[in-house]
Amino acid sequence: MNLKNTPANIVIFGGFGDLAWRKLIPAFYNLFIHDYMPKQFAIYAVHYQGLPEGAYEKHMLEGVNLFSRSGKAKKEEWKRFTDHLYFFQGDFTIEDTYTRLKEKLEANDAEWKTRATRLFYYSVAPNFIETISSFISQFNIADNRQKDRLVIEKPFGTDLASARALNELLNKLFYEDQIYRIDHYLGKEVVQNIVAFRFANHIFEPLWNNKYIEQIQISVTETVSVGTRGSYYDKSGALRDMVQNHMLQLLSLVAMDCPGNYDAESIRHQKVKVLKKVRPFNSASVAQHVVRAQYTKGVVNGKPQVGYKEENNVSRKSTTETYVSLKLYIDNTRWKGVPFYLRTGKCMDKQASEIVVQFKDTPYKIFKDDVVPNRLIISIQPRQRISLLFEGKVPGLEMKLMPLEMDFSYKRSFTDEAPEAYETLLLDALHGDATQFIRADQVETAWAIVMPILDNWVKDSSDMKKYKAGSSGPVEAENLFSDGKVKWLSLPEEILEQPKSRNKNKR
Amino acid sequence: MNLKNTPANIVIFGGFGDLAWRKLIPAFYNLFIHDYMPKQFAIYAVHYQGLPEGAYEKHMLEGVNLFSRSGKAKKEEWKRFTDHLYFFQGDFTIEDTYTRLKEKLEANDAEWKTRATRLFYYSVAPNFIETISSFISQFNIADNRQKDRLVIEKPFGTDLASARALNELLNKLFYEDQIYRIDHYLGKEVVQNIVAFRFANHIFEPLWNNKYIEQIQISVTETVSVGTRGSYYDKSGALRDMVQNHMLQLLSLVAMDCPGNYDAESIRHQKVKVLKKVRPFNSASVAQHVVRAQYTKGVVNGKPQVGYKEENNVSRKSTTETYVSLKLYIDNTRWKGVPFYLRTGKCMDKQASEIVVQFKDTPYKIFKDDVVPNRLIISIQPRQRISLLFEGKVPGLEMKLMPLEMDFSYKRSFTDEAPEAYETLLLDALHGDATQFIRADQVETAWAIVMPILDNWVKDSSDMKKYKAGSSGPVEAENLFSDGKVKWLSLPEEILEQPKSRNKNKR
Repeated sequence: MNLKNTPANIVIFGGFGDLAWRKLIPAFYNLFIHDYMPKQFAIYAVHYQGLPEGAYEKHMLEGVNLFSRSGKAKKEEWKRFTDHLYFFQGDFTIEDTYTRLKEKLEANDAEWKTRATRLFYYSVAPNFIETISSFISQFNIADNRQKDRLVIEKPFGTDLASARALNELLNKLFYEDQIYRIDHYLGKEVVQNIVAFRFANHIFEPLWNNKYIEQIQISVTETVSVGTRGSYYDKSGALRDMVQNHMLQLLSLVAMDCPGNYDAESIRHQKVKVLKKVRPFNSASVAQHVVRAQYTKGVVNGKPQVGYKEENNVSRKSTTETYVSLKLYIDNTRWKGVPFYLRTGKCMDKQASEIVVQFKDTPYKIFKDDVVPNRLIISIQPRQRISLLFEGKVPGLEMKLMPLEMDFSYKRSFTDEAPEAYETLLLDALHGDATQFIRADQVETAWAIVMPILDNWVKDSSDMKKYKAGSSGPVEAENLFSDGKVKWLSLPEEILEQPKSRNKNKR
Repeated sequence: MNLKNTPANIVIFGGFGDLAWRKLIPAFYNLFIHDYMPKQFAIYAVHYQGLPEGAYEKHMLEGVNLFSRSGKAKKEEWKRFTDHLYFFQGDFTIEDTYTRLKEKLEANDAEWKTRATRLFYYSVAPNFIETISSFISQFNIADNRQKDRLVIEKPFGTDLASARALNELLNKLFYEDQIYRIDHYLGKEVVQNIVAFRFANHIFEPLWNNKYIEQIQISVTETVSVGTRGSYYDKSGALRDMVQNHMLQLLSLVAMDCPGNYDAESIRHQKVKVLKKVRPFNSASVAQHVVRAQYTKGVVNGKPQVGYKEENNVSRKSTTETYVSLKLYIDNTRWKGVPFYLRTGKCMDKQASEIVVQFKDTPYKIFKDDVVPNRLIISIQPRQRISLLFEGKVPGLEMKLMPLEMDFSYKRSFTDEAPEAYETLLLDALHGDATQFIRADQVETAWAIVMPILDNWVKDSSDMKKYKAGSSGPVEAENLFSDGKVKWLSLPEEILEQPKSRNKNKR
């Protein structure tokens, strides 16, 4: 699809905010310099305060220079880009803003001699969604179902009830297919690749079930603390902040059945379908299969770190978890009996997002060596790559086995850098491709999964564990693994250390 | 197993020959300097002519310096090695030689206060096997079934009848488990790894059958001509020289069922079993599924090359093939309907030995792109490596697929170089481990497969094709692929060319 000749009006509510500065404007800029933007487009960055002449562009240029993957902006290119970028002073809680906005949009349509695509980006606190949506609706500026889209940032509610209320509000004013709920995780190359990997290759699907897979682990560990986000985070916590959205999205990509087609509705249908099969938590399984914890004073990456309850804007009596790990089951034919382990935490020993598919052990062993069962690792951070751990012969004079790794990494195979997630997703939104965006029922299904956990936690906080900042999490998280042998998996150390000399296999 | 304290007497008939010079002595030397040889051992290099004092050691040092993987010998190490290396002048067609040899062996046993292991290496023309064996038997110098072994080099006969005769001869004089028929291909790391790869990993075996595999190709192409070997080669040809031995051995490793244990008898039993299931060729299938050819004048690696019939010591009317390709089927449950394509030739465009396992196409396509079905490539030459070709998303802003490669190569993962095939095999022979050696019934079964082809060829040579030296073989070889779509496979060019910039995927 070529959109070069499809003009677009883009409105960013919160256009002077942190997200616009770090992500949105750098993404649009990269799309522009790589020639993906329409020939005719305008970005209106809506902000309630006035700024001195040129101050907006200057600040955004700083953002591009700091955060863009293509490095410092070239003067001439930046100049050409800013011809499309308009700072728009306006309070989005009052009518006047929308009156003036509508004039701009219609003036552009007139100039471009076509009704342009309209993208409204809500880069705002959730409590403004209702106000902005009502005005957009009232002014009929998103009244073209095919051309007008609203991009909504998470959080999509703070629990099932509020998520439902938000969906109802949006669906009252707009068509669901106009609503693009964004989760930048879904724009990452390797995450998009999961679907390709699973369904464009004949050799993985036959193995992708409980006959061959022992367990699946999804891990998103961070080294950062809550930092300056204490007041937001203390009302949220790891389960809401990571599990309900990113991690359940990853789970659904890994676990879903093959969609009939690669299109938004087919993919999202399968994702919802598998999430609906997650075995509901109850008091007993929350006690047994969920571990929550808060970090305490420690050292992260060599720097001293205060405990969570000592952080700024965090209650000294906080019962908000900064770490959660849980075991869940999917009750369908494919996954019967296969545990899925999810964990996420702040102030941990390393930053890593990965999906580990652990295959079962060989049923029949002909070699004397202990073999490590096969493992497929889809790494999202720190490096996007796919690795397959297999057993092979140690080069040398004996038939000795050891785990070896085949890997594919983006950095090695492509000199062009992969686009940032926001570039992918913004371009998809401009194209009207909602595949990587989250549908209302996905949000609600994900909330339905975590609600019993939240409900149980509210009743009693005596299960809150502790872990030292800079550690790998609370010791109690290991108890999730019933057989005591399994633990959090990654690539074995000996593989991560390759290449180096080590096979002095003397007899 | 530690053999440091198990003394060994090693006798090389033909100890001054080319094989001893290039392979055997360098291999023993490397085993020695890497501390794999027994503390007490002696190598007797039997040669019929006398040599001046020190000439033998000097020539062998030159061989080590030229051909050893560990580079030039260190003076002190070479000195220590030659303390174990004895030039032994003796005509192996006369009694006296064996009388003196027996004295040496027994003197060593006496000095070492034990009956040492005895290894007799036949590095001689096949017509001497009978004479040497008769003398060894007559002098009772290989009379200890557990300790004495005879290593026989190929060719193991020139047809089924002569192979049977040779086996009968050897089995009359010795136990079959004393006979180590050597095929250096089987000592190569990646070849040994096939068994580990297939049976120590749970994820490959479920896919290793006609449900998932489309075809398997085994390719051994050489750029060298017959060179100085014309008189030998013209009596042999590609089918005898490569297919009957190396390539059918590779076939049996790839196609065999899981052995009950990793030991010589279990492995070799399975290899014979699958070879016996190869569908017998007949006149019709030889005509349809076998292509033979001779190279004609051309250019190889930039150098002019005469045609085969113009080579030295080759008949100007020769009907010996320098190229053969064939399609065969294995009539068992696992492989019903899966074609195996084998090809080998001299003076071709590149030197490569590889096994390509081509998986079937995905039964259900959800992506619009043409996908390349998965392919597993086990490369033996020029580089030992295992690659898995899979489809993945092209990094970039669209969901576009392309074949990507995961690979494991020895060079990348191990800084220690893998041992040479001869080191592996000689040490196995010293250990009495016959797993990688060829049993009598394997030889005969392999001959039984190729005999109908040879028999048909003798009757009529009008099917002999031509190919230009430096080309990829005769055009007629492509006709083996009945559907016309399939061809000789390798890694796709775009993968071999990685990494480089190429994803300018503009919309």
